[in-house]
Amino acid sequence: MQIIPCPGFKAAGVAAGIKKNGHKDLGLILADAPAAVAGVFTRNRVQAAPVRLDRERVAGGVCRAVIVNSGNANCCTGDAGYRNALRMAQVVAVEAKIPESQVLVASTGVIGEPLPVERIEQALPDLLHTLRPEGVVDFAEAIMTTDRVPKGISRPGRIDSQTFTVTGVAKGAGMIRPDVATMLCFIMTDLQVDPAVLQEALAVGAQRSFNRITVDGDTSTNDTILLMASGVSGASLEAPAARAAFQTVLDDVMLALAKWVVKDAEGSNKLVEISVRGAGSDDDARRIAETIAHSPLVKTALFGEDANWGRILAAAGRAGVPLDPARVDIFIGSVQMVSAGTGCGKDAETEATRVLKGEEFTIGVDLHLGCGASSMYTCDFSIDYVKINADYRS
Amino acid sequence: MQIIPCPGFKAAGVAAGIKKNGHKDLGLILADAPAAVAGVFTRNRVQAAPVRLDRERVAGGVCRAVIVNSGNANCCTGDAGYRNALRMAQVVAVEAKIPESQVLVASTGVIGEPLPVERIEQALPDLLHTLRPEGVVDFAEAIMTTDRVPKGISRPGRIDSQTFTVTGVAKGAGMIRPDVATMLCFIMTDLQVDPAVLQEALAVGAQRSFNRITVDGDTSTNDTILLMASGVSGASLEAPAARAAFQTVLDDVMLALAKWVVKDAEGSNKLVEISVRGAGSDDDARRIAETIAHSPLVKTALFGEDANWGRILAAAGRAGVPLDPARVDIFIGSVQMVSAGTGCGKDAETEATRVLKGEEFTIGVDLHLGCGASSMYTCDFSIDYVKINADYRS
Repeated sequence: MQIIPCPGFKAAGVAAGIKKNGHKDLGLILADAPAAVAGVFTRNRVQAAPVRLDRERVAGGVCRAVIVNSGNANCCTGDAGYRNALRMAQVVAVEAKIPESQVLVASTGVIGEPLPVERIEQALPDLLHTLRPEGVVDFAEAIMTTDRVPKGISRPGRIDSQTFTVTGVAKGAGMIRPDVATMLCFIMTDLQVDPAVLQEALAVGAQRSFNRITVDGDTSTNDTILLMASGVSGASLEAPAARAAFQTVLDDVMLALAKWVVKDAEGSNKLVEISVRGAGSDDDARRIAETIAHSPLVKTALFGEDANWGRILAAAGRAGVPLDPARVDIFIGSVQMVSAGTGCGKDAETEATRVLKGEEFTIGVDLHLGCGASSMYTCDFSIDYVKINADYRS
Repeated sequence: MQIIPCPGFKAAGVAAGIKKNGHKDLGLILADAPAAVAGVFTRNRVQAAPVRLDRERVAGGVCRAVIVNSGNANCCTGDAGYRNALRMAQVVAVEAKIPESQVLVASTGVIGEPLPVERIEQALPDLLHTLRPEGVVDFAEAIMTTDRVPKGISRPGRIDSQTFTVTGVAKGAGMIRPDVATMLCFIMTDLQVDPAVLQEALAVGAQRSFNRITVDGDTSTNDTILLMASGVSGASLEAPAARAAFQTVLDDVMLALAKWVVKDAEGSNKLVEISVRGAGSDDDARRIAETIAHSPLVKTALFGEDANWGRILAAAGRAGVPLDPARVDIFIGSVQMVSAGTGCGKDAETEATRVLKGEEFTIGVDLHLGCGASSMYTCDFSIDYVKINADYRS
């Protein structure tokens, strides 16, 4: 992790006993003063209690704290679940002496089990006691579930003569698909930004990052991205050029985190960009990229490092958008595998197999039908993915 | 296999050397006289050469022979591939002395490699020589790819005082999803039926069987279902009651074959019906059933025999149709797991785990929103599925 604390925020992460293995499972971000806030949430119709609560509170545009637990999703837990989400926020508000309406909540883990909110209450004094700017590293650890490593990234930016920071942390390793991957992501900046502008920037950033990744095509019930702005850098987003500068840094942080989520996904060994161009429209390209990125046959071939371009073409063909097989070119890395719908032969396969042995590469598909282009990030589908998800709750 | 030869047809299956392992890979069905024919084909935009040829020829409504090879899909093979499909039909026509336009062709196996049509030519005399009514068993074996067992079913029917037979064989174990699973299916009957009526019956039957199964959500480029009617039983379908009697027997054969394909799918250990009711419409129910049936997280939980209903509810929630989580009931077998959106507790999980250890069961979802209902068949997602598909071509 290359993470620099963001001015205006402290954080912490401790073990509250929610996870069976005793690992850190409770994290807190506290802003030194009320921060502007924006949020993007899951589009699943089944929404966890903390998502429902945050949707209401983010509308207020101001946030002081975010309390997050892993090991339990507090989802499908009925009215009691919503009361527990409220309770989590309430104890933070009381202990930290801040308004309850400015406390946001997130949960991730097993669906359908009651949240042991009393453990959160018990751990809270310890959590507040350990708050510090560098605590963002512990926070990143506390929100992990099946993640192999904590994920956090910082990028500096400049508006006129003033510098600013964007620091983001994310978790997520399964139940990942567009419409916000199954994950939690918390981003901080020290810019001074109006909540409405912040919301717009976040929505654009999500479209360019987390809405372009897939691990297994399953949208979670808890997906949450929050963006908080402390304003302490003094730099503001008045000028359009300033907004563009911020968007560039924000996109950079979000895309890096999103790609990291795919690279660190359950059982994942490879980060693969599926890049489609020459489609009738961007939307057509997007549908083909998504269909290839989700195909279990393509993904198991990636795991097997098999240059099986027939599966790529077959997946493209079932995406439900116009496609003339006789025009399609397919590339693995820079190796052309298919020219005008026909395979390029054994030499190409041998070269492509070398590309497939790498950890990061691009699969390119050119339809030669129009100017539409889009790309998605996916990973291979491995024996470990099945093992992890068959045994998840045991 | 409980298979009875269908009067009016002979069949055979031999090893022509297309498969590397020396197994049977070339099959032939020959009708004693011109038979009525109907066909249903893949909706993938990438269509194999034999599919393109059959589409043209089935329009004629008459068929004498079907020649099928496994081990090579003859797909994405350009103009040469189409000429090879034509050539396969031509050699059958010449050797069997029948019109070339009445010979249909099917291929299944690896995409993108040239079809070794000369091996088919060489094996043809042997194939014709071994034709006999009981040869349908060898035929069923010759069309297998990753199938573990040959699949064939016969059912008798009765129209007034006359009996008739429906005999079907199928192959398919991966690249299976609705819009015709990745598979080949050949059905014979000795009824006398007009091709247009036959086509209607086949379309209805496909909708009720092969369009309701999924293994991995990948639609193949070669899917073909052919239904041939020899007429030798003397029974005809003039009366509406006769058509209903035929449709019942045809549906029965097709659904049994379709379920068998799922049960015998790559790495499959369980045949699971996803039954959704109480939806706003049949179409909504269908979309939810499909989303659950395709979910890798649900399917890996089935493999792990884990009663993880949260994944079922989360998949339902992302199907893109109206759903009120607070009304949803979920059942595993007859065990209620979720009542009005909330889990039914540990006892229910223990009982459900017993159901999950079985080889065949139903997962029921009731939305309590309306009268829409639909069901799909799926299987578990196992370590063997990944192994088989990672190593398929090696």
